[in-house]
Amino acid sequence: MKINQFGLLETSREQKESELKDLGFLDENWEKKTLLQLWQCFLEKSHPEVQNKNAKLKTLMATHDANVATFLASGKPLTQEVFARVGLQLLGFIESVDYEADHIQKFIETTNLSFQYGMPLETNIDLIHAWYNFLAIHTKSGLMFIDFLGSKGFFREFTNTHLFFNGKALPVFDTFELIREVVYVETDEDTDEDGWNDLVKVEIIRPKTTQPIPALFTASPYNQGVMNAVADKGLHDVSGGVQKKSWSKKTVQLPNRVQGKVRTPSTEEGESEETFTQALEYSLNSHMLSRGFASIYSTGIGGMESEGIMPCGEASQVASFKAVIEWLTGDRVGYTNKSDNIPMKANWCNGKIAMTGKSYLGTMATAVATTGVEGLELIISEAAISNWYHYYRENGLVIAPGGYQGEDCDVLSALTFSRRKQAGDYYASRLAFKKSLTLLQKNQERETGDYNAFWESLNYLKDVGGIKCKAVLVHGLNDWNVKPKHVFELHQAMLKQGVQHKMILHQGEHIYINNNRSLDFTDMMNALLTESLLEQPSRSFEQLPQILVQDNVQAETWHVERGWGLDTPSELSLHDNTSGKQSFLDAYSKDVAADFSKNPHSFSEEIVKAESSKTNDQRVFLALPAFDKEVYLDGVPELQLRVKSNTDYGFLSARLVDLGEAKRLKKVPTLTGETIDRGFGFKEEGVKEILLDSPTSEKMIAIGHTHLQTEKSTVVEKEVYTDISLKLQPTKYRLPKGRKLAVVIYATDFDFTLRGTQPIEYTFDFDKSQLLIPIRKVEHED
Amino acid sequence: MKINQFGLLETSREQKESELKDLGFLDENWEKKTLLQLWQCFLEKSHPEVQNKNAKLKTLMATHDANVATFLASGKPLTQEVFARVGLQLLGFIESVDYEADHIQKFIETTNLSFQYGMPLETNIDLIHAWYNFLAIHTKSGLMFIDFLGSKGFFREFTNTHLFFNGKALPVFDTFELIREVVYVETDEDTDEDGWNDLVKVEIIRPKTTQPIPALFTASPYNQGVMNAVADKGLHDVSGGVQKKSWSKKTVQLPNRVQGKVRTPSTEEGESEETFTQALEYSLNSHMLSRGFASIYSTGIGGMESEGIMPCGEASQVASFKAVIEWLTGDRVGYTNKSDNIPMKANWCNGKIAMTGKSYLGTMATAVATTGVEGLELIISEAAISNWYHYYRENGLVIAPGGYQGEDCDVLSALTFSRRKQAGDYYASRLAFKKSLTLLQKNQERETGDYNAFWESLNYLKDVGGIKCKAVLVHGLNDWNVKPKHVFELHQAMLKQGVQHKMILHQGEHIYINNNRSLDFTDMMNALLTESLLEQPSRSFEQLPQILVQDNVQAETWHVERGWGLDTPSELSLHDNTSGKQSFLDAYSKDVAADFSKNPHSFSEEIVKAESSKTNDQRVFLALPAFDKEVYLDGVPELQLRVKSNTDYGFLSARLVDLGEAKRLKKVPTLTGETIDRGFGFKEEGVKEILLDSPTSEKMIAIGHTHLQTEKSTVVEKEVYTDISLKLQPTKYRLPKGRKLAVVIYATDFDFTLRGTQPIEYTFDFDKSQLLIPIRKVEHED
Repeated sequence: MKINQFGLLETSREQKESELKDLGFLDENWEKKTLLQLWQCFLEKSHPEVQNKNAKLKTLMATHDANVATFLASGKPLTQEVFARVGLQLLGFIESVDYEADHIQKFIETTNLSFQYGMPLETNIDLIHAWYNFLAIHTKSGLMFIDFLGSKGFFREFTNTHLFFNGKALPVFDTFELIREVVYVETDEDTDEDGWNDLVKVEIIRPKTTQPIPALFTASPYNQGVMNAVADKGLHDVSGGVQKKSWSKKTVQLPNRVQGKVRTPSTEEGESEETFTQALEYSLNSHMLSRGFASIYSTGIGGMESEGIMPCGEASQVASFKAVIEWLTGDRVGYTNKSDNIPMKANWCNGKIAMTGKSYLGTMATAVATTGVEGLELIISEAAISNWYHYYRENGLVIAPGGYQGEDCDVLSALTFSRRKQAGDYYASRLAFKKSLTLLQKNQERETGDYNAFWESLNYLKDVGGIKCKAVLVHGLNDWNVKPKHVFELHQAMLKQGVQHKMILHQGEHIYINNNRSLDFTDMMNALLTESLLEQPSRSFEQLPQILVQDNVQAETWHVERGWGLDTPSELSLHDNTSGKQSFLDAYSKDVAADFSKNPHSFSEEIVKAESSKTNDQRVFLALPAFDKEVYLDGVPELQLRVKSNTDYGFLSARLVDLGEAKRLKKVPTLTGETIDRGFGFKEEGVKEILLDSPTSEKMIAIGHTHLQTEKSTVVEKEVYTDISLKLQPTKYRLPKGRKLAVVIYATDFDFTLRGTQPIEYTFDFDKSQLLIPIRKVEHED
Repeated sequence: MKINQFGLLETSREQKESELKDLGFLDENWEKKTLLQLWQCFLEKSHPEVQNKNAKLKTLMATHDANVATFLASGKPLTQEVFARVGLQLLGFIESVDYEADHIQKFIETTNLSFQYGMPLETNIDLIHAWYNFLAIHTKSGLMFIDFLGSKGFFREFTNTHLFFNGKALPVFDTFELIREVVYVETDEDTDEDGWNDLVKVEIIRPKTTQPIPALFTASPYNQGVMNAVADKGLHDVSGGVQKKSWSKKTVQLPNRVQGKVRTPSTEEGESEETFTQALEYSLNSHMLSRGFASIYSTGIGGMESEGIMPCGEASQVASFKAVIEWLTGDRVGYTNKSDNIPMKANWCNGKIAMTGKSYLGTMATAVATTGVEGLELIISEAAISNWYHYYRENGLVIAPGGYQGEDCDVLSALTFSRRKQAGDYYASRLAFKKSLTLLQKNQERETGDYNAFWESLNYLKDVGGIKCKAVLVHGLNDWNVKPKHVFELHQAMLKQGVQHKMILHQGEHIYINNNRSLDFTDMMNALLTESLLEQPSRSFEQLPQILVQDNVQAETWHVERGWGLDTPSELSLHDNTSGKQSFLDAYSKDVAADFSKNPHSFSEEIVKAESSKTNDQRVFLALPAFDKEVYLDGVPELQLRVKSNTDYGFLSARLVDLGEAKRLKKVPTLTGETIDRGFGFKEEGVKEILLDSPTSEKMIAIGHTHLQTEKSTVVEKEVYTDISLKLQPTKYRLPKGRKLAVVIYATDFDFTLRGTQPIEYTFDFDKSQLLIPIRKVEHED
């Protein structure tokens, strides 16, 4: 077990003392106390759950034969070892199970706990600083010790006013008395064509306090539930195969942005008259809720109890989320209900907002940021789409997000159109929705796979220049749903446009990491949010690493890095020992095709194996020579291929593979068995970690797909070689010494592409082909 | 999707009106209202989350072109169809997705919803009774509609006083203001030999109310966490093989029950001075907590912050849980802390207690019940051990609980001795614990597998006569951890001793079923608890079915049955077409043995296959002739075998198998995606259902193991036939027409037995062997 805390901020001695006073660890008499008395005071305050503190001191071992109560009575001097040993127990580590009493320092080093072992402990000042440091260390289950004290009731006697420790807000707000209210915010568009501008329902959860507080807003079309059965019925058939491109550009008519009638608010202001209970809450928001940040959720237009149709990333949708922020900052009207025109204000809000969320939710955060809306100070955008074309298409091909074959913009729209859950409301909006869906189906041009004006309108990368807030980008390097290209290109665009941002790349797939044990993600976000939305002068944005990357070889290991894809690509030959020319026929037996179609995941497992009877004939598998040392692949692998087809069109898929028996990290994190909460008695959550898996023979590093006709100018003729370039997904991948790279080239990808019905033969000239890959020496900045 | 509600109680017309008045659905003027007005009133009260009720009425569809608001305005008559259609929507079903507007009645029949479709709806009285009935129907996610209204805040304005509906307590108690307190109850024994009787820590969660309330007590040695790493180190080697029995009875010295000094309570009574936050709470308890039943948790002796050593089911442990009940009823002293001798009373308790919990927890409920302790009115004992010998031993063999090879009483004791988590406390108790563990290791006699005085002391079946309370027994027919024999024998003993009990047999493995969607388990328990602990005259114990069994062929189907194993066994021949004599050699290649040892579960999958290259030579596999119709196996299958060994000892394993390609139920329930809570904003929980799996070729029905020397009088000589009887686990199993039974006989069972190192050859004379099995006609009482 290892813990990595990057969120520890430099704090001056004066600041530390001041914060400890605010927390009640230091009273007026602290200077008069002996060292042991002061330590005893700290330990007693560490047991807020009980009045008889001595009972708890007896449960802690100080030396090999004295518990803390006995030790204190003995008057023996407090040593670093005793301080650390008792500290480990307070953090939840079990003596003679988790650590051996004789190897405290070694244990601290192994687990990477941020104890400052070896610092003097002679004066009260020494102890104060050791204790301040200790309060920031993560417990066994992954909360800072001061937060853990909060979980035990430490802040029960505090008032509902922001309180800070090491640049982070503390859980002082009472979550047993939260206000849960609803507002209906008016947008500027009438997408459901009922004559009036759409209202969107917004759910607010906020602590009772008279102090103005900031808000964390998660824009989630999923938030009122989804229509799985409807979406499943709408899934597209993917058995049609890929066609020759005609390039006959269709005219794309983007949705009309109709302005409807604007309501006239009554002169008298109202208060919320609606509440709610169960909501899909994001635990990062909940974590900050107990720390004095309101949680805001909305589906935008088209969600249950909102008005409007349900788009898929389009401008109307983004505008409806922007409207919520405008309501929060006082720049837009919101109503107590949908009929009475009674306005309701966010008087409680300090006008500073951050957006959070993963996947579609993070995507909306990015999109709203590009509008430059006032009051939005920070987005924490996780596993977000930056360009929808890269989500449902790739190089002229229809491509599924991993695991979702047959999905497209229209399917996602139907899935999230949760107004349909309420038959009475659906009845009134069904025709408008049907119309919008029909247009979406036309515009997405699934039959060609081409990039068009519709897709251009869903490409947020072009609008990055409009971003005025800061950003945190989080993405899984093994996310084959929203693939790493999304964050790579957003990062590049932000660099270019000077948008201040942090980037965290983990080894998981499409997951949240705010309950990951080995990284203090939530603390870092707390620090950034506290600085951005509460104007605390902690300089956290300056101090936190710009890029953090999880190691793919060792578990629980995170590196500070300087960039992504900075190095010049190396050129690797694809010519293997046999022949410069190789072919395959993209045709599967009916049975195999049926199996892979039913279980596409098994195809992905099979296609990367060095030996695969089921796919050997439908692919070229090239194992490259081993490197003489460990290498670090950092950037976009590119295949330059000389290829011909036995007809005048075709398409290619390729995977870059790490070959060799080894234990590798799992893509899905495992529950560690520990639990944390997001405030006193509030929102328990299991802690997770990405663990090493049993040994495997290979692992996919990156993937890519392309039509042979990538541009109108590309000429593809039957049996005539053409040179194409296929950029795979960007990666950061440490390939240990002894392991090999392999390249698999094939066409039909049951997991991602349309499934070829045409038995096309592809032939490659590997003398004229190569793999370009940015390789840099293994070195991290940490 | 099907819902089965057995917990609906007969209620008189007067009682219904009275309850609807208590709930506020009927005011003084209800008789003056029109039918539509009364319905409108009911619908408006069904939206407690909002002031503008009309907005919500608009979301509900009444007829094909009118929402409820429009319909009400139109003044059209309320029909059964409109009532049901709106009802379905209120229950969470989505029109044109879950049900078709034109097929309401069919949908209600298919889902088995307890709508009384077709009853007249002409008078207010008709409507009142229809509405009462409707309030009891389960929503799509599995709560009664009245409970679901509670989740939306219906009871927010009610006081913290018990309120009932249809014999069940309602969630009126405020869970945002719970009292969480600790008491240390004094036992009558000093098991850790520190001179004083052991104190056990008890955690109490109760609503704030002045009304005396009952308590649900879960006795759980796991409740303060477990010592996995310590237990894993203590696992026994299972590779030693089985030995010839010597029958040299060792003397068993049961633990001394030492009485220590008794504390002298101070004259002044105290109040709790300790609280807690995270606790391992059972959601059935939490469900009842919001309904005015306190939740009580304790590890008994040996748990963290309790005193004493940690037994394994022994009398001292049971007595320490009994002590908790005695404290609750005022018959025993409890202290505010472990040192100050300040007594603290359970003044809030009405003196009526039920015990709940699964596995070890349910076991303790059974064991405490056998003491006949005053105040214990009901136990809900799930997947409980009734005789520890049947848990770790079987017919003279050491047998693992499924999935836990190498575990034994001593391992479980070390696992649950959570005092070890606190080094200071562990230091003081470690020698006493070591001593108790050493005695346990001696007494469990793992080297012989024999039943002895120690095991006799852990056999609660012999004490069933002492039970004074009622009982609910819940068990999985596919629970191979705590096997069905435990509940079968407890049920038989209770029948014999006249202990009033209900029995629910589900198709899961070692699971809880209180979040199962298809059965209203929690409602039934609510009714029984309400009657038993709050003396409500609902006659629920009289009305609820005595035995409920989940169907093993159809999902979501439950039957009322009349008994278990009542029919006379049929005798089936084991002689197949080839020969009356068959042999196998119990010897595996090193590689296969290593594989199976590493992954015992794969052995269990393999051994029941009709063709299994890995085990064919180490077993006899007998496929019996198909029956000419569906049969229902109900009771204990028994193998009567004429067998000889090529040495003078040996052991046998056997499995009864259902053979034939078919979709069968999974053993583990699947999350349905729906969520319920256990009170307003309190303890959300995912709903689960046991679903049909993909087709499989076979499934184990029952299993058994025995040493060849089952009694001292059994003579086993080399190469001489002997007749033995092997009773398999009891079952209830519907075998559809076209499927076959098979019997697999073998020796080493990598999943359960010690693993044979001796290559013993076993030979059977199947002309003189048979399978006895109680078969009855397929008929259920429902």
